[in-house]
Amino acid sequence: MTSQHPVLALDIGGTKLAVAMVDERGQTLGLLIEPTDKLRGPDAVIAHLFDMGRRSIELAGLGSPVAVGISCGGPLDAASGVLTGPLHLPGWIDIPIVDLARETFGVPAALENDATAAALAEHRFGAARGADTALYLTLSTGVGGGAVIAGRLHRGAAGNGGEFGHITVRPGGRLCGCGRNGCLEAYASGTNIADRAADLLTSNDRASTLRDLPVVRAEHVAAAAAAGDPLAADVWTETVEVLGQAITDLVNVFEPDVVVLGGGVTRSGAMLLEPVRDIVRRTAMPPAARAATVTLAALGDVVCVVGAGALGHDLSLRLDREGSSRV
Amino acid sequence: MTSQHPVLALDIGGTKLAVAMVDERGQTLGLLIEPTDKLRGPDAVIAHLFDMGRRSIELAGLGSPVAVGISCGGPLDAASGVLTGPLHLPGWIDIPIVDLARETFGVPAALENDATAAALAEHRFGAARGADTALYLTLSTGVGGGAVIAGRLHRGAAGNGGEFGHITVRPGGRLCGCGRNGCLEAYASGTNIADRAADLLTSNDRASTLRDLPVVRAEHVAAAAAAGDPLAADVWTETVEVLGQAITDLVNVFEPDVVVLGGGVTRSGAMLLEPVRDIVRRTAMPPAARAATVTLAALGDVVCVVGAGALGHDLSLRLDREGSSRV
Repeated sequence: MTSQHPVLALDIGGTKLAVAMVDERGQTLGLLIEPTDKLRGPDAVIAHLFDMGRRSIELAGLGSPVAVGISCGGPLDAASGVLTGPLHLPGWIDIPIVDLARETFGVPAALENDATAAALAEHRFGAARGADTALYLTLSTGVGGGAVIAGRLHRGAAGNGGEFGHITVRPGGRLCGCGRNGCLEAYASGTNIADRAADLLTSNDRASTLRDLPVVRAEHVAAAAAAGDPLAADVWTETVEVLGQAITDLVNVFEPDVVVLGGGVTRSGAMLLEPVRDIVRRTAMPPAARAATVTLAALGDVVCVVGAGALGHDLSLRLDREGSSRV
Repeated sequence: MTSQHPVLALDIGGTKLAVAMVDERGQTLGLLIEPTDKLRGPDAVIAHLFDMGRRSIELAGLGSPVAVGISCGGPLDAASGVLTGPLHLPGWIDIPIVDLARETFGVPAALENDATAAALAEHRFGAARGADTALYLTLSTGVGGGAVIAGRLHRGAAGNGGEFGHITVRPGGRLCGCGRNGCLEAYASGTNIADRAADLLTSNDRASTLRDLPVVRAEHVAAAAAAGDPLAADVWTETVEVLGQAITDLVNVFEPDVVVLGGGVTRSGAMLLEPVRDIVRRTAMPPAARAATVTLAALGDVVCVVGAGALGHDLSLRLDREGSSRV
């Protein structure tokens, strides 16, 4: 069947483009990761992306893809396949990426929010396999998420399928990139973890090993907190508190089987996961807390590419079914 | 077909029992509402409930029901049909209500959390008709909720399908009945609206028309706020603020087509709905805010009975399908 053939997966990030052929077991072949040269504008970046696509097809050596799956940060319109204005790609307004990919590769294409695609990938091939209700949170430059409900990707009325980064954790608190105050993203994204540490370093003269660094990043905060630096530990405590609170809210409102945490910030591992699990266990409604497993993502850095591949497979399967039902 | 025949719907509330025959258009026939005599214990109350069922069947004059649908506050186990320990019915531990109903009425029976059943009712027959993703919130003695996703009732891994009353709105704030601080229910339930007013009345000597009342209830607070009483207006402002914040969170994480507000507190009408709509419009992520309609429930006081009826219809349809697929 056509659907067993591999899919070309394109992930459009703000700093890197990731492209691979993805098979039905979620394996990536001919994986290419190259920088996003944003300054050259959408036309040049898309030409580069599609060129990577051609090279990946050749590298993988599996023949032509049956479909193209594309993941990108929002806002985008998945139904029409248009990037309406992704926050991480300034100036990309109303780019019909699905039409462009279809014309270039001569096969059907599908587009989805990258965190939504990642949720699909973790559900199909990763830490949420077999779950009826699965939530995925990515803690990265920003905080995003996606949900699989009754085994199917939840898109929602606005097509982003859940903006978990904008759960209110501290009413009237830190200003978020979305323009509101107190969102989860304003505390728990990599950028904001670093910014909160920088704020503390400038607002008082407490001793901290972080003062020796030219630039403080989230991974420095995690490492210093793990090494016993009290200022870094304070920043980390607030990080796990807001994250635990937001995940408690998600566990209460969705009653998921599993909550999967991915993205760069989760490289901190147990020092993030354990206290968050503990907060959920103590503060979510007992039946919901008992039913939900909170765990780290299994697919690592290629999760969005694998998700884009899964999208392509779903599209191909659906077209096959529609084709055969028409016969 | 069997499925066109009416269903016996039983709603077990803490203060009243509501029973009716419900047809496939969601109409109630032979509706009976009688007090829950909790002090007499589960056996006597259930005997009373089933007696109301027999009378309702006779009153409706439509012959025997094809199924029984039951709604009750949680915690309960919908899958096994057992009331594990409803908070509003102290001492009701592990009551196999579905088995009891099946034995009594000789037809299949189904059980669901009352707010989940209400969500189903509003989706099928009320304010959320035709919505792909619909959320229902009841603001009553407590605050509960339910979700319909992709047109199907969302039960979740714990079977309550969403405890919307326990979204965190004020971290570390008022103590909630669940034992945690700062939940939506601790501010926006009828009981807590009244309690917050009573707290203000005792903690300072501001003038208020509420001081003339022997007991302050939520509807008094709403009426006094509408009449310009400044203390009542402060209580009301906080009510709509926390509710607007919680619904913004729900709109961001579910991206629903519609959020339906029901329960006694919503009798206040536009003075609740309009400011909540305004908060969601201003503070939810723009695509999610544009996609979501926030509106009042359409089915009023019989929503849980209608929901129990819809449950019974679904059960009957499912058994019919399974029966015919077996032939």
